[in-house]
Amino acid sequence: MQEQIIKNIHIVLVATTHPGNIGASARAMKTMGIEHLALVAPRIYPDAEVTARAAGADDILMSSTVHESLSDAVINSNLVLATSARERSINWPVLSPQQAAAKIIGAARQGAKVALVFGRENSGLSNEELELCNAMIRIPANPHYSSLNLASAVQILCYELRKALLNEDEEKQQSGETVALANNEQMNMLYEHLQAFTTEIGFFDPEKPRLLMRRLKRLFNRAQLDVNEYNILRGILAAAQARTSKHEDQESVRE
Amino acid sequence: MQEQIIKNIHIVLVATTHPGNIGASARAMKTMGIEHLALVAPRIYPDAEVTARAAGADDILMSSTVHESLSDAVINSNLVLATSARERSINWPVLSPQQAAAKIIGAARQGAKVALVFGRENSGLSNEELELCNAMIRIPANPHYSSLNLASAVQILCYELRKALLNEDEEKQQSGETVALANNEQMNMLYEHLQAFTTEIGFFDPEKPRLLMRRLKRLFNRAQLDVNEYNILRGILAAAQARTSKHEDQESVRE
Repeated sequence: MQEQIIKNIHIVLVATTHPGNIGASARAMKTMGIEHLALVAPRIYPDAEVTARAAGADDILMSSTVHESLSDAVINSNLVLATSARERSINWPVLSPQQAAAKIIGAARQGAKVALVFGRENSGLSNEELELCNAMIRIPANPHYSSLNLASAVQILCYELRKALLNEDEEKQQSGETVALANNEQMNMLYEHLQAFTTEIGFFDPEKPRLLMRRLKRLFNRAQLDVNEYNILRGILAAAQARTSKHEDQESVRE
Repeated sequence: MQEQIIKNIHIVLVATTHPGNIGASARAMKTMGIEHLALVAPRIYPDAEVTARAAGADDILMSSTVHESLSDAVINSNLVLATSARERSINWPVLSPQQAAAKIIGAARQGAKVALVFGRENSGLSNEELELCNAMIRIPANPHYSSLNLASAVQILCYELRKALLNEDEEKQQSGETVALANNEQMNMLYEHLQAFTTEIGFFDPEKPRLLMRRLKRLFNRAQLDVNEYNILRGILAAAQARTSKHEDQESVRE
């Protein structure tokens, strides 16, 4: 399963200027178990500097593919994400590396081909290239010095991918099954249910909301519920409501 | 406050062989807003290659300190953590980069001087050097190829430090305060409370426990509750119990 996920993930380097960065990126990928590299119009390739900086990750280079354009490299991709250090005026969806890793692993697990694109060292991606992408990834760099080395950016993203894969393995070992994450609609239903229940038991006062719902949302968003966990929480709320509403029915009967 | 935390964190490179790695580490630090670099017996330093690979992070190099030994470099440190790719036979406490970052930021916030130590490219740290360290950090690398470049390891750790700092800022902005994490005793009380409540409402059957409690524990352990969130959840359970037990009292009165 993990092998299949990794097969579906491609790291794409666009028009890399320094051959050393290609080698160092291959090394960064391999340390994190990511295997497929696609090179779009590399300026100098192959080159002794590429091999030297790959430091034993030659197999990544050997199996890499070279393309004339980004559109050619991502022609079979179902999901294309691009990293960017720069703020963009256009309103692209922006993900953190961690969010991107969860999205990529989730999509690749379901069989989607995913391309993770890194632009030129100095000028990133052109607007035409950006239009091929579904979302941007922003690495949270120092605003006064955001000049991440290309291979360092590859390293951070591949590290988050590996963390997401290992987490998934651990979950699977513990639960013996693969469970999808709860989606946005489900999370909204859970929050409505929580608000209704805490209102019923007098814990939440809609007239004086303070921070309660915001805090609960922050907690459960942070935890990234899977569908099982979502069902458990909804089930607890429903069972508790069945009790308290019975109680209220009795009260009204007695009045 | 953030400045004070960053002041207390020192990146220590021990006996680095390749001058390029020193420059690239300085660059990696600066992209993540980490400022203090200590060099222990660098093989070649200063050098044009150091400056070239620093790519504008010269201020980190200018303010760095050079020491004869690791014990000299960490003499004023209250917490010393070392990264290691190798498995060690001795039973050292081992942290993930994320856990280490939380620990480092927490300690530095309270005024502790923290040293984050990176060993030689090929041979890591000697046993004498390891004995100066409080815990090890293991970057979760590919077991078949764990040869992370030194600057890449610095990049990953500094990235996790930045994420931990930014998270802290965000939490503070949202809540207007700094809140401690719930401790183990509190989490156990929460789990007992959850089990008692779900039993009362008939959702949990102690005779047929299945996976319910394990799943709830996994969820809340993953979320790392702070004390506010812990109090909210305990409060909801108590308010709900007050309702359902009133209901049960009535039932027993009626019988």
